[in-house]
Amino acid sequence: LAAPQALDLLDDAALLQVSGTLVVAADAMVAGVHFLPDDPPDLVARKLLRVNLSDLAAMSADPVGYLMTISAPRDTDAAWFAAFADGLAQDQRAFDVRLLGGDTTSTPGPLTLSLTILGRTLQPLRRAGARPGDGLWVTGTIGDAALGLLVLQGRLPDPTGHLAARYQLPLPRLELKLGGVASAGLDVSDGLVQDVGHLCRAAGLSAAIEAVRVPLSDAARVAGPGWLETVLTGGDDYELAFALPQAREAELVTRAAEVGITVTRIGNFMEGPPNVQVVGPEGRELALARQGWQHF
Amino acid sequence: LAAPQALDLLDDAALLQVSGTLVVAADAMVAGVHFLPDDPPDLVARKLLRVNLSDLAAMSADPVGYLMTISAPRDTDAAWFAAFADGLAQDQRAFDVRLLGGDTTSTPGPLTLSLTILGRTLQPLRRAGARPGDGLWVTGTIGDAALGLLVLQGRLPDPTGHLAARYQLPLPRLELKLGGVASAGLDVSDGLVQDVGHLCRAAGLSAAIEAVRVPLSDAARVAGPGWLETVLTGGDDYELAFALPQAREAELVTRAAEVGITVTRIGNFMEGPPNVQVVGPEGRELALARQGWQHF
Repeated sequence: LAAPQALDLLDDAALLQVSGTLVVAADAMVAGVHFLPDDPPDLVARKLLRVNLSDLAAMSADPVGYLMTISAPRDTDAAWFAAFADGLAQDQRAFDVRLLGGDTTSTPGPLTLSLTILGRTLQPLRRAGARPGDGLWVTGTIGDAALGLLVLQGRLPDPTGHLAARYQLPLPRLELKLGGVASAGLDVSDGLVQDVGHLCRAAGLSAAIEAVRVPLSDAARVAGPGWLETVLTGGDDYELAFALPQAREAELVTRAAEVGITVTRIGNFMEGPPNVQVVGPEGRELALARQGWQHF
Repeated sequence: LAAPQALDLLDDAALLQVSGTLVVAADAMVAGVHFLPDDPPDLVARKLLRVNLSDLAAMSADPVGYLMTISAPRDTDAAWFAAFADGLAQDQRAFDVRLLGGDTTSTPGPLTLSLTILGRTLQPLRRAGARPGDGLWVTGTIGDAALGLLVLQGRLPDPTGHLAARYQLPLPRLELKLGGVASAGLDVSDGLVQDVGHLCRAAGLSAAIEAVRVPLSDAARVAGPGWLETVLTGGDDYELAFALPQAREAELVTRAAEVGITVTRIGNFMEGPPNVQVVGPEGRELALARQGWQHF
């Protein structure tokens, strides 16, 4: 798995040259909290890598490499580690990123993983910067992962397997490169409404989301309108949400078509205290019980 | 704690410019494995940061910043986090390094910490590169931390508190900057004999350590020769061990004096299959039951 810059993982650290601006982020995942202890190890590995790659996508950055620490119960067997490494190898190829270093320890508790991703960009995208009149856009479809979690909990049918797959294996939108095009952006990890709220607070603006415009997969559509709140607040989408000046719309649509990513305008930003209003099918504001995922 | 480049920890990643070669490493620490659950939180924080800084010292690099993930039991109270952050703040000032990002999650298991350190260097030091005839040198004193662990376990007296302090709070040797002076080096974390073995394997050489030359603190000397094997194999020293051509000895000694770090020649490298021979006071090879710390 190791990159040449990892020096065969024999030194105390990896050495690398990075041109442009360095972009760094870290995420942890704990068995029983972020995944189930008997989830397929290759999917666990790939999800951890992909949620971190999604942070790079959010900043309009390309991957450089990653470091990972694994704290594993002593009874974790070699087959588990082999499958875990196979998953990493597969996504290393898919996303052109390699291991730079890390640490393996034992733990008397659940398997705990931590990954630090390194990327580079010439034109970063920030959370702050949305302007009044900007459109609010998202990539792909929203809500599949939150519904997929319900599927895995046996609370929802999923005849095509699409929803569960979207929960287990997010797709980081690295190709879109919104730096210099969008005025602000992030990846939707905590839930659409909460994450749009982050864009609002960073800009000192309010936003309105038109619920009917939120793009749904066929599988989510089949689940029905009763799950709308889950779709809007459930999290784990790892799509991008961003603010786009109207003057850049043609450029965005061309670029998105080139890389095969769908983009949808779901609302807009306006003057007003930081707040996210969700407008329902009849033009009335929807009242939501919660906005998204609580980290702790 | 956050660096300006951390963007107030509000974005998906930190953005930074790094000149020279980027140096990255990561280490994890688990309560009950690497520290005791009721250890002072500020010392836990500072040790985690310092063991990572020691990896930079080993590579002859300066700190740039760090990312940390914390997986904490839900009953971890605010006072614990406050003391932990105070410890980080103290060492951030001491070592001119700041937080770049991270993640906080809950865990049903023990407190688990992971830290990724970023550094920069113009002249890295590698593990590979020792040459036959190079001297084997170490900084500071060896064995204090391993004896300090025995003190904390109630197995050894420590009237001055020196040994326990050295276990709880290693001192990364960042000032020495051996790149371009030493031919190879690392930090002694797994135990002197095992880590010198790493230098040997990387170079395809053997090494001899003269036990009487291994520098001991007054406190370690008081503990007595019965603990020699613990001193040589116990680990957690976070001193530097390095190979030095005889022609560079004067330069090393001058530099070490300038930064106030003691350096001691404890042996030498020679042709031969990778192996570490420890020569005792009577010139006989010492037989050691183990070479050092097993990671997993």
